[in-house]
Amino acid sequence: MRNVVDGLIGEVFALCQENRAGELADYIPELAAVAPDSFSLCIATSDGYVYESGDAHTEFTIQSISKPLTYGLALADRGLSAVAEKIDVEPSGEPFNEISLDPVTERPRNPMINAGAIAAASLIDGDDPEARFERLRRCYSRYAGRELSLNDAVYRSEARTGHRNRAIGHMLRSFGIIADDPEAAVDLYFRQCSIDVTCRDLALMGATLANNGVNPVTHERALAPDLVERVLSVMTTCGMYDAAGDWVTQVGLPAKSGVGGGVLAVLPGQIGIAVYSPRLDAHGNSVRGVQACRELSKELELHFLHVTRAARSAVRSSYSVAEAPSRQRRGPAERDSLEKFGRRARIYELHGDLLFAGTETAVREITAQSDELEAVVVDIRRVDDVSGVASRMLSDLYDDLGVRGCQLALVDPEGLLGHTTSGLVPAAGGRVFVDLDSALEWCEDTLLDRHCAGARLPESITLAEHPLVSALSAEQFDRFAGELETRTVAQGQLIVHRGDPAAGIFLILAGRVSNTLQGADGVPHRITTLAPGMTFGEMPMLIGERFLGDVHADTDVRLAVLPPDRFARLSAEAPGLTVALLEQLAAGAYAQMEAAIRSLAPRGRLG
Amino acid sequence: MRNVVDGLIGEVFALCQENRAGELADYIPELAAVAPDSFSLCIATSDGYVYESGDAHTEFTIQSISKPLTYGLALADRGLSAVAEKIDVEPSGEPFNEISLDPVTERPRNPMINAGAIAAASLIDGDDPEARFERLRRCYSRYAGRELSLNDAVYRSEARTGHRNRAIGHMLRSFGIIADDPEAAVDLYFRQCSIDVTCRDLALMGATLANNGVNPVTHERALAPDLVERVLSVMTTCGMYDAAGDWVTQVGLPAKSGVGGGVLAVLPGQIGIAVYSPRLDAHGNSVRGVQACRELSKELELHFLHVTRAARSAVRSSYSVAEAPSRQRRGPAERDSLEKFGRRARIYELHGDLLFAGTETAVREITAQSDELEAVVVDIRRVDDVSGVASRMLSDLYDDLGVRGCQLALVDPEGLLGHTTSGLVPAAGGRVFVDLDSALEWCEDTLLDRHCAGARLPESITLAEHPLVSALSAEQFDRFAGELETRTVAQGQLIVHRGDPAAGIFLILAGRVSNTLQGADGVPHRITTLAPGMTFGEMPMLIGERFLGDVHADTDVRLAVLPPDRFARLSAEAPGLTVALLEQLAAGAYAQMEAAIRSLAPRGRLG
Repeated sequence: MRNVVDGLIGEVFALCQENRAGELADYIPELAAVAPDSFSLCIATSDGYVYESGDAHTEFTIQSISKPLTYGLALADRGLSAVAEKIDVEPSGEPFNEISLDPVTERPRNPMINAGAIAAASLIDGDDPEARFERLRRCYSRYAGRELSLNDAVYRSEARTGHRNRAIGHMLRSFGIIADDPEAAVDLYFRQCSIDVTCRDLALMGATLANNGVNPVTHERALAPDLVERVLSVMTTCGMYDAAGDWVTQVGLPAKSGVGGGVLAVLPGQIGIAVYSPRLDAHGNSVRGVQACRELSKELELHFLHVTRAARSAVRSSYSVAEAPSRQRRGPAERDSLEKFGRRARIYELHGDLLFAGTETAVREITAQSDELEAVVVDIRRVDDVSGVASRMLSDLYDDLGVRGCQLALVDPEGLLGHTTSGLVPAAGGRVFVDLDSALEWCEDTLLDRHCAGARLPESITLAEHPLVSALSAEQFDRFAGELETRTVAQGQLIVHRGDPAAGIFLILAGRVSNTLQGADGVPHRITTLAPGMTFGEMPMLIGERFLGDVHADTDVRLAVLPPDRFARLSAEAPGLTVALLEQLAAGAYAQMEAAIRSLAPRGRLG
Repeated sequence: MRNVVDGLIGEVFALCQENRAGELADYIPELAAVAPDSFSLCIATSDGYVYESGDAHTEFTIQSISKPLTYGLALADRGLSAVAEKIDVEPSGEPFNEISLDPVTERPRNPMINAGAIAAASLIDGDDPEARFERLRRCYSRYAGRELSLNDAVYRSEARTGHRNRAIGHMLRSFGIIADDPEAAVDLYFRQCSIDVTCRDLALMGATLANNGVNPVTHERALAPDLVERVLSVMTTCGMYDAAGDWVTQVGLPAKSGVGGGVLAVLPGQIGIAVYSPRLDAHGNSVRGVQACRELSKELELHFLHVTRAARSAVRSSYSVAEAPSRQRRGPAERDSLEKFGRRARIYELHGDLLFAGTETAVREITAQSDELEAVVVDIRRVDDVSGVASRMLSDLYDDLGVRGCQLALVDPEGLLGHTTSGLVPAAGGRVFVDLDSALEWCEDTLLDRHCAGARLPESITLAEHPLVSALSAEQFDRFAGELETRTVAQGQLIVHRGDPAAGIFLILAGRVSNTLQGADGVPHRITTLAPGMTFGEMPMLIGERFLGDVHADTDVRLAVLPPDRFARLSAEAPGLTVALLEQLAAGAYAQMEAAIRSLAPRGRLG
């Protein structure tokens, strides 16, 4: 569906469309034969959406825009240092087709001039020329996300007339930059330049570079992330002929143009931009292509140094278990202890991609608070990607906090942190939880073990110890006990099912019971875990509604149940007893509501 | 407090400290007189924390690191285009002190070579040489966050021996780049180079550039954001002598070095890096400075093209009012209607800095869903900064959704969106809310006005219409009504105060009442708004606790109150009546808990 962004792009399109300056390339007849005012502007996002305008599906030859792609494949085939021995990465003040090398280094100055591009082509792996070209073609196709093919007419014209490039090839051979037949390298270069693309293809190629080398539509990898960085670096300083400083200053997007009329630009991490308009300026750049990139950069504020501060802090929120208790219901002594010591266990929720700077904020904040902490949970469920340095920093933090007497655990259900290599290995005493509530419970247990050893909630109680009966007289207790049924439920069994009608008041005497609610997203969420001395089922019964969620036995469970018919009889025959029960139930409901609000609030709308 | 980041930086420090290659600058005796193995490495974050190592407080002269700062002030004084007429921005393959201009443009190639720097110095505003120097010194001091001063001995030596720079000055005058006395410009240049800084100062200068021109400690602005972009662009391509491509490729940080031994590097948006080590390589760059930048970039993954994807999506979460009702309690017909139509009003919570790419995701998502929406709220409370293009896009979205029959409102308490210039002006029908709950209420009211016109909750009810009495017999009702006191409260008055003891059961007959809880952060939050037919105060009374929050009258309010002593009497004398009341109260509490959980859950821990 069109949205307002189409309008913004459309304005730039309309502005540039008025510009009819420049001339078609005419060194071969095929390039001079295209529609001179054909024009397209496409923007592809790094999540694979493409904004198209104009002749987005018109094919033209990729020409020099092939250079960064071939350079990337050469880097993948030969490695950074082997390629660096043959091709430098310095901007050149010279024309792109200069038949000379840097006088000091005796290498082509960079892979974006013809000498460097032909040298890069000579480094592509393959058993024979056909295999090498096929590898290139398939590589380019991965960037575009569709099978690209050779424009045979353009290739034959280029091959017939490309004496200057042959001269460059032989010069490279004479300086030992090309080790074998220079004609083969030059021929491969002619072929790579003659691959047909559309403006939409180029935009997706740009988005693939923006997306760390993975095509955002097909999810196929075209280039390794560290090589993407290298290719974009070279495009930054050497991509646009003869005016690198001006381009970086005014446009601020790594880019490459081709005499076929294409321009490809990349906003790293965000978008790919492509323009097709075959009228060229004196440098051989598309006139409208350059203009559209300048306008887009200015109007959409795309300069790559115009960065967000959002990446700065990785800490999305942080709170103690005093503010956000686990859903494990606790006894009074435990509650008192957690109220007193709960601030000594703290959860740090991180988000975004963990690079150095964001992780640094988190590490600094946690360390600064660590004197007052005994347990820390780092919750990385909302983290997208973890860099090597961030993994190392968290592992170091685990050791550092350990020395300070503070335990560190992770919530990392997807195993982003590569636990096999870090100090956060479960086997080494580290803890990794798949959900936050288990981690909160671990925090609480850690604190309770230290501060409340003597008064942990009992594993089982007698009926007389159950708080619900605390306000009853001896006579009322006997009457009440006589109405109860005892029930045992094995671990894992369902006690009541969502939608069940009222089934009585359930008093827990032994074991753990959990209450699961289906969220708006259809996913079941554990709302609370109940322990001996607690009660459930009263609400559906009192108000005649059905159970909102499932109730499971987390362990083997012993219950005392007051069935609905007996509760009705008690209400009628012993209203005093019923009032005493209801008051206790109301108190329990109130405490439960308070706990639910407290456990939801820190990350909810109270923030 | 030291943290694990100090350890990472310390490793790089230790590695570089072993390197004793290079020679001190010796063209003036002062530079040759420093401790040759003095060494410091500092990293300052864009929120103002400084990691220091080594001789972080040793002073040395800033030398050429002054060039980007003076260039920035010249841009501020004269404007981008006037400066561009005098100084180009192209990388130069020539030595920094070349006495020549670009043969084609007849301008200095860039402001990082001496010719460009002297030209920049000549553009600084000021009535006389002293005033001009003082403006430069104060500008540099704003970057550093402390008052910097001139090293008089170095200045006098530079002035005595700087014939080459005088030659450049006169050459600039002969080509008309400098309009008046070239000696004055050269003298100012000598003085700017002779300002003393520490490694810590340089790191904060870098952090100021990283922080869009604002010193992160003093919060003083040193340079306008658009000029920061320009200065960093020039540092990217021209900052390190003779090896721009190599630096961008391998280090990937805009940087500048000086013959005093300093190196300053910037990771835009994130950190400033500074190194001091006076042994220089053949290019005049600090040997350890270059090495430390390379190592830090590699080890901490600081390359500026190594971007996060976090900036990609601005939508932090989104949910409908069906999932997250407002705290306005609704009557049964309204609840039914909102259950049925609540998905047609949707809240989009944005976060981070709104640049083009992130805003584009949000606009695309909202537009794609707009066919099924009648009201949209864009919540920008967690947005840090709004770019011009984002403001424009949201304004366009307001118009676009309007055409599609969908209303757009904002939650923007800080007025980030500059409402005076956008379509989102309240006067033009746009709505801007200061809190989310008011916006949710507006969404609900918008839906209810369209879909539930006939059955809105009444403004007032009689006691007999109050649901609490619905299960009472006629006789019980008379008995109950006889115990009640009627009370009216004026708008804005406190009805009960946090910490008050139980004060009775309050039945609302007319008006609105809101319940405010103090959060863990000490800030009051509105928990719920109650309307006629609802009850409060029962919980503190039933369980003998004090009120957890304040209760205010949002409008003039009419209440019927059952005081605690009369409730006690009723419980003793008419337990059947009390059971009927308690069952209704339990139902109300249950509904309230469910509403609280539902309203908290979508953004809370159920997510």
